[in-house]
Amino acid sequence: MLEACSRPEMITEITLQPVRRYGVDAAILFSDIVVPLRAVGVGVEIRPGVGPMIEKPISDEADVAGLRDLEPSDVSFVSEAIGMLTAELGGTPLIGFAGGPFTLACYLIEGGPSKNYDRTRSLMYGNPELWRALLGRLADITITFLRVQVAAGASAIQLFDSWVGIVSPQDYKKSVLPFTTRIFEAVKDTGVPSIHFGVGTGELLGLLGEAGADVVGVDWRVPLDEAVYRVSAGKALQGNLDPAVLLAPWPVIEERAMDVLAKGRMAESHIFNLGHGVLPETNPDVLARLTDLVHAIPAGSAGS
Amino acid sequence: MLEACSRPEMITEITLQPVRRYGVDAAILFSDIVVPLRAVGVGVEIRPGVGPMIEKPISDEADVAGLRDLEPSDVSFVSEAIGMLTAELGGTPLIGFAGGPFTLACYLIEGGPSKNYDRTRSLMYGNPELWRALLGRLADITITFLRVQVAAGASAIQLFDSWVGIVSPQDYKKSVLPFTTRIFEAVKDTGVPSIHFGVGTGELLGLLGEAGADVVGVDWRVPLDEAVYRVSAGKALQGNLDPAVLLAPWPVIEERAMDVLAKGRMAESHIFNLGHGVLPETNPDVLARLTDLVHAIPAGSAGS
Repeated sequence: MLEACSRPEMITEITLQPVRRYGVDAAILFSDIVVPLRAVGVGVEIRPGVGPMIEKPISDEADVAGLRDLEPSDVSFVSEAIGMLTAELGGTPLIGFAGGPFTLACYLIEGGPSKNYDRTRSLMYGNPELWRALLGRLADITITFLRVQVAAGASAIQLFDSWVGIVSPQDYKKSVLPFTTRIFEAVKDTGVPSIHFGVGTGELLGLLGEAGADVVGVDWRVPLDEAVYRVSAGKALQGNLDPAVLLAPWPVIEERAMDVLAKGRMAESHIFNLGHGVLPETNPDVLARLTDLVHAIPAGSAGS
Repeated sequence: MLEACSRPEMITEITLQPVRRYGVDAAILFSDIVVPLRAVGVGVEIRPGVGPMIEKPISDEADVAGLRDLEPSDVSFVSEAIGMLTAELGGTPLIGFAGGPFTLACYLIEGGPSKNYDRTRSLMYGNPELWRALLGRLADITITFLRVQVAAGASAIQLFDSWVGIVSPQDYKKSVLPFTTRIFEAVKDTGVPSIHFGVGTGELLGLLGEAGADVVGVDWRVPLDEAVYRVSAGKALQGNLDPAVLLAPWPVIEERAMDVLAKGRMAESHIFNLGHGVLPETNPDVLARLTDLVHAIPAGSAGS
């Protein structure tokens, strides 16, 4: 997996596949959220069926100090891939990709995926100084990683702070928001639109927007006509068909997709998407049919 | 684990430990949510570090039809344990314990623990008839299991629908609420108070109360002074100190516990508790100190 994420031809090929196969409206860079960590020398591998495993988890200030800044040359393979991609994609936009600082911290602290990332929250509560040092370092790495992608030609960026839904709004505000805000501020001058997403973030939707993104991604738990009240004016919503719906018979998929489109009309603008990643057991024909269904709805009636 | 859950002396001993050690205000029956499934003949074992593993997952109507009703004699070891416990506990109340129907369905459908229980949601969306048959069967089993506990002497009951937070409010209402409502209605005539809890259920708190419980448990993600607006009048709240806080230094624990108590004052009544189970790495001395701290707050000022 990480090998594939560091070979420009492979990144290009995998990124293009859904565009070619389904004709979706945008490509999203094929990557993994640990790619910039590996690029600064963190020992990390993706264990199949498990997820990223960190060789030496972070536990003290020396560990944090050992995390060096990302240099654009560390991820030249990403720039190269984006160059190839924009040439291939023509008018189809490419969305850049980075993990959020909370989620990167989760992996670095726990050493790998965990059910509730309890040790991460416990470090956040118990050692705020170390926490801030770590998140500051991760924010800087993420800023460089995103700026590299825009410089290479990405026409939007998405920050995936996948596991941040495990913290309360108060803790997000105090311990995460300063860092996500710093990231969105630092990429603002690039002028590209930004998307901010995490799983199970119903309580945090307003704050995810407050961090500075133009678009807030919503998972399947919160209907879009409710999400719209949680996000401040001027933000677009992205989402939120439950990926598990795609394993159901077509009439159920159609009804649910139409419901998402209808509720999305409540937002100032709405980007139709799944509420989380495609499940491996999904039938590709269903994805094609879903794309066609969404494209058949006039943009005016479903938002843009 | 399941062996321990089926031996009355063992259940009694483990149930009494926190009461003896910390002097908490109530005991909760030591059990596992798959105990009633095993009692009706479902092949299930608890794999250490993983969780319950089901020998033959449920996938069709014949599988559901094969789930027989629970007879009180199937769980006589629980009645026996409760008899011993009430004798030992004296005035300290014993809270009965059962898993919620959604969570039991999760294990039966997936065959074991899963990150997002995607196949469960997909069956719920795609095969509502099978879903209703399964949840109806599980509700009946749960009703018998809870009534047995009250008949044996439990002075309250708690329904743990641990993973129900992965469904949206609309889906909860349509596909889960009828069954949790049936459970709470069927135990109402016993006259004992009932508690309803699930992890990550911020969006569902109102509906968890609507199902008929007297007390709604809140995990650490939603502050109690916000939870109070989501639950209808007349309900008590239980919770919600983040168990990960207990791994932090004492001053942090104290501040956070006092904050939970202060916010709990907004509720009509509040039962102080953790927002999820105690983490294995928690220092028992910290639990003792926390119990003392909460007991030192006059009941009037912290709710009852």
